[in-house]
Amino acid sequence: MAQILNGREVVDAINEKLRAEVSFLKEKGITPTLGIIRIGDKVEDISYEKGAIKCAESIGVDVKKYLFKESITQEQLLNVMAAINLDLTVHGVILFRPLPEHIDDNTIRKALLACKDVDGITDQSMAGVYTGTDLGYPPCTPRACIEILDHYGIDITGKKVVVIGRSLVVGRPAAMMVLERNGTPIICHTKTENMKEICKSADVLIVSAGQAKTIGADYLNENQVIIDVGINMADDGKLCGDVDFQAAENIVKAITPVPGGVGRVTTSLLMMHVIDAAKKTI
Amino acid sequence: MAQILNGREVVDAINEKLRAEVSFLKEKGITPTLGIIRIGDKVEDISYEKGAIKCAESIGVDVKKYLFKESITQEQLLNVMAAINLDLTVHGVILFRPLPEHIDDNTIRKALLACKDVDGITDQSMAGVYTGTDLGYPPCTPRACIEILDHYGIDITGKKVVVIGRSLVVGRPAAMMVLERNGTPIICHTKTENMKEICKSADVLIVSAGQAKTIGADYLNENQVIIDVGINMADDGKLCGDVDFQAAENIVKAITPVPGGVGRVTTSLLMMHVIDAAKKTI
Repeated sequence: MAQILNGREVVDAINEKLRAEVSFLKEKGITPTLGIIRIGDKVEDISYEKGAIKCAESIGVDVKKYLFKESITQEQLLNVMAAINLDLTVHGVILFRPLPEHIDDNTIRKALLACKDVDGITDQSMAGVYTGTDLGYPPCTPRACIEILDHYGIDITGKKVVVIGRSLVVGRPAAMMVLERNGTPIICHTKTENMKEICKSADVLIVSAGQAKTIGADYLNENQVIIDVGINMADDGKLCGDVDFQAAENIVKAITPVPGGVGRVTTSLLMMHVIDAAKKTI
Repeated sequence: MAQILNGREVVDAINEKLRAEVSFLKEKGITPTLGIIRIGDKVEDISYEKGAIKCAESIGVDVKKYLFKESITQEQLLNVMAAINLDLTVHGVILFRPLPEHIDDNTIRKALLACKDVDGITDQSMAGVYTGTDLGYPPCTPRACIEILDHYGIDITGKKVVVIGRSLVVGRPAAMMVLERNGTPIICHTKTENMKEICKSADVLIVSAGQAKTIGADYLNENQVIIDVGINMADDGKLCGDVDFQAAENIVKAITPVPGGVGRVTTSLLMMHVIDAAKKTI
């Protein structure tokens, strides 16, 4: 049976360090603060928001909410962002997307200061991930994948790491982070030929396919480590990943569960970025 | 014997289109103009400059040279760049690097307007390559690799494309461009394990290893297309690539020669970017 790479364990280790950093900052009179901009009442946004607030509370990070109706205009939103950019008491900002259709995503992304971009949505943050420099912040989900590998001592130097999915939120940044760790990244996507064969030969699979059970037994080998980024609702109403967990746990060496894997680690990394942004104001 | 992917043929096709675009612009009173900033007298810089000027002349692009001694200060160089940014008659700029040690590369890169960054050195251009959007311009060398594939009708959709090298000038942007063409990029580097096996299984190899004869017969298969980015001086004083050409041409399906392959196409793409930048001023 595969080793379970438990998100909770990773979170506990990260949060312990973060609490110490928050104490240090509070002694200096700084309370690291996350701004959450939410437009409308999407269920998944509210769910992520609740998780983030819970995590923030447990670490000692403050949260300021900026809640708006779907009818907010682009100009009004830009004004809000300009005010947050100037507000020295807000260190990092997340903004739920997709935005309403009448608001241009690019215009809004560009309006955020890179130093407050704790979830990696600005061009500067993207250039930072791509170049391996500390411009802005990387998106939290791919960073969670790497933190899990690190926590469990899984060294990817020289290893074949297949990333399934090429989005700017997971696939591409994950591949760039693999490269920073000296792994050999392979980016697969819907157009990739012979994906089974490519996956089967990989040492690590980072799966962000966006569909339940995309990866079954015939994509796997017994020495693999599987990081499952997917979150889907199965027919039985339970959450599941993009990997067929029941099949995989009998084959591979190690695997993250869903829920309780990557997703759980993501919010801790959001707090890590907020705290880092706050430290930079000292 | 392998098909030779001749850079000259690609250049002829590109330049023909570019001449028509230049005529169109000149009718509108605009002469596309490239600014070349060179500090010192490095042989390789002067050689590239000569090639660029020759290519520019044959297409009808003007060149303005900004030549400085190694003793130029960072402030002086920043003033030059600020002046070029404001100069509406200069549409694109290349800057030979590495810069002298007393000048900070990052500071200088950031000083250039992305809309004039025809060789992809600014963060905006890098974000553009990474995200697949038209922020700034991609570096010319990886784009030359893709243009050669396009010219010879080599479709990489779904194909395994191994990129050897992970620099920001060739390897990383080449991998991102492969992704934009729906290929499956694999980025190999000095730490990669089992590189022979990975290369042997590839449909296309883009080689930017920085060393002569890095890739020999045991990395190759008979259905492969090889794009050799390397330029090295062989023991006999002749130029050669990173691939053992004599061995490869008896094995693979198609290969670019060195010289006369990728390098030749690069300056045409530089002109393409300058002309595009000029068009955007209409």
